[in-house]
Amino acid sequence: MILLQGLAKGPERLQDDSRSPVDQRPNIVLIVADDHGREAVGCYGNTAIRTPHIDQLAADGVRFSNAFCTAASCSPSRSVVLTGIHNHANGMYGLEHQIHHFRSFDTVHALPVRLEQAGYRTARIGKLHVAPESVYRFQRVLGAGKVNDPASIGRSPVEMARGCYEFMTEEPAKPFFLYFATDDPHRSNTIAPDGSPIFDGTKPNLFGNRPGGYPQVGDHFYQPREVSVPAYLPDNRASRMELAQYYEAISRLDQGVGRLVEYLKETGQYDNTLIVYLSDNGAPFPGAKTNLYEPGMRLPCIVKLPGQHKRGFVQEAMISWVDLMPTLLDFAGVDVNTITTHGRSFRSIVEQASVTGWDDVYASHSLHEVTMYYPMRVLRERRYKLIFNIAHELTYPMALDLYQSFTWQNGLKKGEIRYGKRTVAAYLHRPRFELYDILADPDEVRNLATDPKYREVLTRMQAKLKQFQKQTQDPWVSKWEFE
Amino acid sequence: MILLQGLAKGPERLQDDSRSPVDQRPNIVLIVADDHGREAVGCYGNTAIRTPHIDQLAADGVRFSNAFCTAASCSPSRSVVLTGIHNHANGMYGLEHQIHHFRSFDTVHALPVRLEQAGYRTARIGKLHVAPESVYRFQRVLGAGKVNDPASIGRSPVEMARGCYEFMTEEPAKPFFLYFATDDPHRSNTIAPDGSPIFDGTKPNLFGNRPGGYPQVGDHFYQPREVSVPAYLPDNRASRMELAQYYEAISRLDQGVGRLVEYLKETGQYDNTLIVYLSDNGAPFPGAKTNLYEPGMRLPCIVKLPGQHKRGFVQEAMISWVDLMPTLLDFAGVDVNTITTHGRSFRSIVEQASVTGWDDVYASHSLHEVTMYYPMRVLRERRYKLIFNIAHELTYPMALDLYQSFTWQNGLKKGEIRYGKRTVAAYLHRPRFELYDILADPDEVRNLATDPKYREVLTRMQAKLKQFQKQTQDPWVSKWEFE
Repeated sequence: MILLQGLAKGPERLQDDSRSPVDQRPNIVLIVADDHGREAVGCYGNTAIRTPHIDQLAADGVRFSNAFCTAASCSPSRSVVLTGIHNHANGMYGLEHQIHHFRSFDTVHALPVRLEQAGYRTARIGKLHVAPESVYRFQRVLGAGKVNDPASIGRSPVEMARGCYEFMTEEPAKPFFLYFATDDPHRSNTIAPDGSPIFDGTKPNLFGNRPGGYPQVGDHFYQPREVSVPAYLPDNRASRMELAQYYEAISRLDQGVGRLVEYLKETGQYDNTLIVYLSDNGAPFPGAKTNLYEPGMRLPCIVKLPGQHKRGFVQEAMISWVDLMPTLLDFAGVDVNTITTHGRSFRSIVEQASVTGWDDVYASHSLHEVTMYYPMRVLRERRYKLIFNIAHELTYPMALDLYQSFTWQNGLKKGEIRYGKRTVAAYLHRPRFELYDILADPDEVRNLATDPKYREVLTRMQAKLKQFQKQTQDPWVSKWEFE
Repeated sequence: MILLQGLAKGPERLQDDSRSPVDQRPNIVLIVADDHGREAVGCYGNTAIRTPHIDQLAADGVRFSNAFCTAASCSPSRSVVLTGIHNHANGMYGLEHQIHHFRSFDTVHALPVRLEQAGYRTARIGKLHVAPESVYRFQRVLGAGKVNDPASIGRSPVEMARGCYEFMTEEPAKPFFLYFATDDPHRSNTIAPDGSPIFDGTKPNLFGNRPGGYPQVGDHFYQPREVSVPAYLPDNRASRMELAQYYEAISRLDQGVGRLVEYLKETGQYDNTLIVYLSDNGAPFPGAKTNLYEPGMRLPCIVKLPGQHKRGFVQEAMISWVDLMPTLLDFAGVDVNTITTHGRSFRSIVEQASVTGWDDVYASHSLHEVTMYYPMRVLRERRYKLIFNIAHELTYPMALDLYQSFTWQNGLKKGEIRYGKRTVAAYLHRPRFELYDILADPDEVRNLATDPKYREVLTRMQAKLKQFQKQTQDPWVSKWEFE
């Protein structure tokens, strides 16, 4: 932090005197994993998985224990990370690719553009999955590969790290922003390019794992018996076989993180680089991804500061992905009062113990696939959580890859009535409001919304949620009145 | 038609010999009205409204009595008119403007681009309401004004016609394509630019009518008592007051059509110009627009041929807006076998009596506003009509302008149980399948889908509809299986 104090007015100085010899603002590396659930990281308490490099980052920096995405779907969540604006107000209501085709408004100002304006060199590698390119413009696109492209470099995180080496070192006088977004540990595509099904629910998905592995990635195989099955999943052969594959993809990803850090150290840039590790949404299993239950939205978030003081600190402040853009811009010396955002910078509290004023987050999910309309709005406080299922009359829609998963199909075929801690019926048919006491009921199975004892809590939180929707220009706020 | 016979291979000849002195292919004028219901046109049997110029066009040409849009929403419907592809496959799933932000895929080939490739000069005036501009590219954009822009020329159809004069005459050696899209007779905006409500449901909307009128437009005022109230609307003071305003907007639009025709005659181009008059969807009242009931989808369509033989002919073939692009390209001499479309050219049958093979149409509506998810798929045969309400569990969503209409609010305030021929409850809560015998029950109020006597009809039509969805790559085809 000391390093930065003198640069609080950095960008203005830079504009006044663009010939200043060396810009000492920190580099920023933002690592975004794809579907990496919080329950599958060593430093978050999973003793079965091997993620030594991510754990080391947490040991060097700060691990956030209450970090949340705001939409449990890839494109919407990433749009929030990169704009600081909820998806319902930035236009990225659902997935970007193929037929889904959602796009942010042309008027949105995204993080890489702002950092470029502030004098940063910007580059991205791996998955983008937001559009249009003109809004989410990076100066450089490293590596190759598109969403759902089998040739994507996004499945080979060590190669990705290698693909960044030149960019990280070529112009040392200027700080850089590197957006490093892996395809791991997303499920492998379930449909082959010719349209034939690869995974039809009769065997585990491979999560990008392939015979022979990937360049310079060490093998991490897991046995179904050794994985740790989270409470939201049924504990059986199918889920364990899939989790074993999932873990393998995460350990591959972990090695990419390790290589990236190694390069930063090797080139003497590690100390002056802000590194953020997070995931777009929870694990790619029914019950997590696309849901705003805790496994879908409470995520890993590790922040290694430039000039880190407290190593291995655990920060309990509640933050969400709308806070990232203002925070990163704050580190880059941009006056955050000048930017439009639904979040706020948490820069000043990263290493602070007993933080106050960071005790709630909001989430807003609209669609995933274009056919999966299921808008949900959430207010998550420390104790209570309110979920407003706006289209609750609909059967909860399943993403194609999750529907086809071995884990789900296995239960379907056996006619299982339960799925994890819930019944299948309760999972598919949800009430308009769900209210949970997260402390007493961390698995969110006892809905208190209809319990008269909680009427006051419900009313208070409903008013607060509606106010949030109004303040953030949520088009769905009309649904409180119309129906 | 004779004129055209020798030009059947027109475009190829043109490419072979670009110095051919005069291209004799017909000009094409496509007039698209905004929310003009079939029941509010003189030549379609309304004796209360005055539409002499539109009626004259029908008298000079052919009036289609079974013409249908495929989506009862502005942007999706226009996207179909201009691409020949159902909105569920061209990406324009809902409205284009502001927060709704739907866009067609970049890979779509739209009519103006194809006609330009075939050697036509292309221009548009008035409302576009589809995107991106690069897909729907016209060489020239005449006049001014955007969707919902009070300064739009789209509200002043005579001015619009004047704005086209130069384009129509400036390069006589080359045929032109003019896309003439009025804002009339759409409702006036209900929200002022400052966000305050203009029409709050306590008085009739003005449908663009204003004190002092528009340049060179003669006054056509209507008394509430003289309008003809269609069966789908309640007959009361509120609906009559709104219909009177609606009629006035239509008579204004009619004068724009008249002026355009006048210019074509004056410059000797009328005989060699193909003129098509149609509407994007039905009238802007609950019960029509956004619905795939007949008032929403069965629309005016008048075709005045180049070299017309049969004047005042009524064509009973069933056509839909997916057929327009192939038909217009056919008239332009493009080999329609080379284009991708869900429709087919009706060029050869325009003047033909007792046509066979044109006995069904399909419709596909997905959203209107982004918050109005209500996908419907329809098979309309001569006798029976099947509606598949994919998200039928939801309350039927109301467009903001229709919800705020005097007609609707009046019934709401009075606690009316009925709305036109239906109950309000039936209008808002629809079953998964609706099957109507259109001949016996033209108002679509007796649902036969649960009647065992019609099981065979239902099953046959369901199979046919599903097949249509598969063939046209409808993302919502999955809803037959998942739920």
